[in-house]
Amino acid sequence: MFSLIGIVLLAFTFASTPLHAKENQSLMIVIKQTHSIDTFTTFGGQTIENVKVGWESYGELNEDKSNVILITHYFTGNSHAAGKYHIDDAEPGYWDAIIGPNKAIDTNRFFVISVDSLVNIGAFDENVITTGPASINPKTQKPYGLTFPVVTMRDFVNTQKSVLESLGIQKLYAVAGPSMGSMQAIEWASAYPQWVERLISVIGSGSADAWTSAYLEQWTVPITMDINFNGGDYYNLPKEQWPTLGLTHALAMITQSALHPNFFIQIGAQIGYTPLEEDALQSISAKPSIVNWLMGRAAERAHLMDANHLLYLVRANQLFVTGMQGTLEEGLKQITAKVLLIPATTDLLLMPYHAEKIDSILRANEQSSQLEYLSGDLGHLEGVAGIVKHANTIRAFLNDEAPKAANSDNE
Amino acid sequence: MFSLIGIVLLAFTFASTPLHAKENQSLMIVIKQTHSIDTFTTFGGQTIENVKVGWESYGELNEDKSNVILITHYFTGNSHAAGKYHIDDAEPGYWDAIIGPNKAIDTNRFFVISVDSLVNIGAFDENVITTGPASINPKTQKPYGLTFPVVTMRDFVNTQKSVLESLGIQKLYAVAGPSMGSMQAIEWASAYPQWVERLISVIGSGSADAWTSAYLEQWTVPITMDINFNGGDYYNLPKEQWPTLGLTHALAMITQSALHPNFFIQIGAQIGYTPLEEDALQSISAKPSIVNWLMGRAAERAHLMDANHLLYLVRANQLFVTGMQGTLEEGLKQITAKVLLIPATTDLLLMPYHAEKIDSILRANEQSSQLEYLSGDLGHLEGVAGIVKHANTIRAFLNDEAPKAANSDNE
Repeated sequence: MFSLIGIVLLAFTFASTPLHAKENQSLMIVIKQTHSIDTFTTFGGQTIENVKVGWESYGELNEDKSNVILITHYFTGNSHAAGKYHIDDAEPGYWDAIIGPNKAIDTNRFFVISVDSLVNIGAFDENVITTGPASINPKTQKPYGLTFPVVTMRDFVNTQKSVLESLGIQKLYAVAGPSMGSMQAIEWASAYPQWVERLISVIGSGSADAWTSAYLEQWTVPITMDINFNGGDYYNLPKEQWPTLGLTHALAMITQSALHPNFFIQIGAQIGYTPLEEDALQSISAKPSIVNWLMGRAAERAHLMDANHLLYLVRANQLFVTGMQGTLEEGLKQITAKVLLIPATTDLLLMPYHAEKIDSILRANEQSSQLEYLSGDLGHLEGVAGIVKHANTIRAFLNDEAPKAANSDNE
Repeated sequence: MFSLIGIVLLAFTFASTPLHAKENQSLMIVIKQTHSIDTFTTFGGQTIENVKVGWESYGELNEDKSNVILITHYFTGNSHAAGKYHIDDAEPGYWDAIIGPNKAIDTNRFFVISVDSLVNIGAFDENVITTGPASINPKTQKPYGLTFPVVTMRDFVNTQKSVLESLGIQKLYAVAGPSMGSMQAIEWASAYPQWVERLISVIGSGSADAWTSAYLEQWTVPITMDINFNGGDYYNLPKEQWPTLGLTHALAMITQSALHPNFFIQIGAQIGYTPLEEDALQSISAKPSIVNWLMGRAAERAHLMDANHLLYLVRANQLFVTGMQGTLEEGLKQITAKVLLIPATTDLLLMPYHAEKIDSILRANEQSSQLEYLSGDLGHLEGVAGIVKHANTIRAFLNDEAPKAANSDNE
């Protein structure tokens, strides 16, 4: 159980073994590459000079470039969707269970590509290439901090489009992603319907409703309240004076948001948590063991991440409505792709009502929609660590086979 | 709709009209009274001198003092469970829909009493009498701050017991409360089974599991991260230097925790929230309208509340396990009372699994248990603002009538 918990936590960093991964680990060795854009104009109308984003790919691009599947990543993720950088990496990319030779997204057949987002949270991870508040503004030769323009899902999509176009690609066999990746995938299908033939939205949402927007805001509070936040202008100070404690609290909140109590209670049992702990009874400053555990795990990954980038990611999620104009209904109407929606039944972050709403709007418009539920105790994280449970659903969807009856799907 | 939203928010302060209240408002005029304890010994073994708590009552104590129902309050509540202090109060106490003449908890028959908790969040509310970190330590003549001892649900129960004993009461016809009030009610029935004949636990929990403990901790983060927190030692500074912003963020989190997206989305529609708001698109420092709305409502009530008291309330909840020793199972085994459990189906804070677990343990021990669900869009708050939907269930339970079939209950 403990190694499973470790694996789940890793899923929040940059690599994960899905819970149901088979014995034969992937042998795909992948290389992070860099794409540059001299001048990028944001959806909000600002320009950013010298944008760089990382990308990686699995499988081979075919001659007519018709076999491309784009994977869009989640909030604390990056483009490392599958494979390993080095043979001795502890874990492969987060969706390695479904991306690889003969897997659901079969790299013997498809050219699978993924791109690091702008304002990626892993600003200080050597395997992430991103542009955001921690980047140097060429005009001032100083880090942007909060002078970096607000960016949106459309901007993430447009940087991905720039990468694809640099490879001569003009069509996506499919676009697929979990959580924030789902928003990008949906935005792709709405903004560029002529590009997108198939859309797979996992633990996703078509727009940030009022609850979601306010909930995401909670993640920003520990950072902006941190005595070291300094209006986002901390990069030139010693690292001890950065808002790392606030960032760590934010990461702890995010981890909890992505898990269901069913799984959390298993973690508690594993670490020996009990409600009535003597330290916590005797001192208001002592913390329950489960809190210390959660903060400890968050602290381990905080040093690779940037507090300002987290704020910008939250904002990109808050601003999201499919099509980035008008209503969700209007945005979804633009979609011509075949659609597969996979919410998780125990998800407490982007609850299944998001996918159900998309499904019902698409069906009302007589657009394609297939809705399949992920079950399991992980909550939101099922869409990352538990995705292999719908491997056959995804394989059949990509093969344009008719959907099977519910519950017949298993790997 | 807007007035309904206002009412729901009021339910988080100190007065509410339940959503389904009838036209005839309660005419009960109530008076807050004070109970003093010279030396109180906490469950953790510390002593507190000169403890004072407020209490109020509705109805008349009968001659043999056999008609007492104790109401235990929720996290941001106090002993104002029903009636009004003044005829022109905007709203009556939070459970006024079920407490009063001829109501489910009939004050023509019962003597209903409620007590302000220790470390009550409303430390600066003129209608709350409490002892906690904001109180003056008689030994130092300064506010306790974080030198105040940690207190627990057992301590809340013991102050209530002291109030009751001062009135010559030695038995409770029933004890009932929502949320944190449920924990106190369950603790009563476990710690003092000879006192408690009937127990009504609404939106409750028998113990703080790992998820709940970590989740409650999130509410403390904005306070302890506030630049003005100063280790809890702020009372002698000007009010502008108190951690009011942190407290406000914490209250906003609590409000969101207690509501379901279904209702939050209605608030959003009412205030004209849309995801893609121009201010939020153009400036990272601007906030989505729903965030501004939530913070505005929180700011309105922060001035009556104390940040340190919130920390102590969180801790009291984190430390809770029925019986305050051993396991939940062991604690529940002590209960001899007849038990009614009322979770809310849309509750995202103390989800129905808490009540279901209690129910299943009691049944396995062949103890009394009746489980009834509150439905509705409010989430956790259904147990406060929507309780009248189970008025008949509560009335029948108090009358020792056999439970009716599901869904036959309505007021």
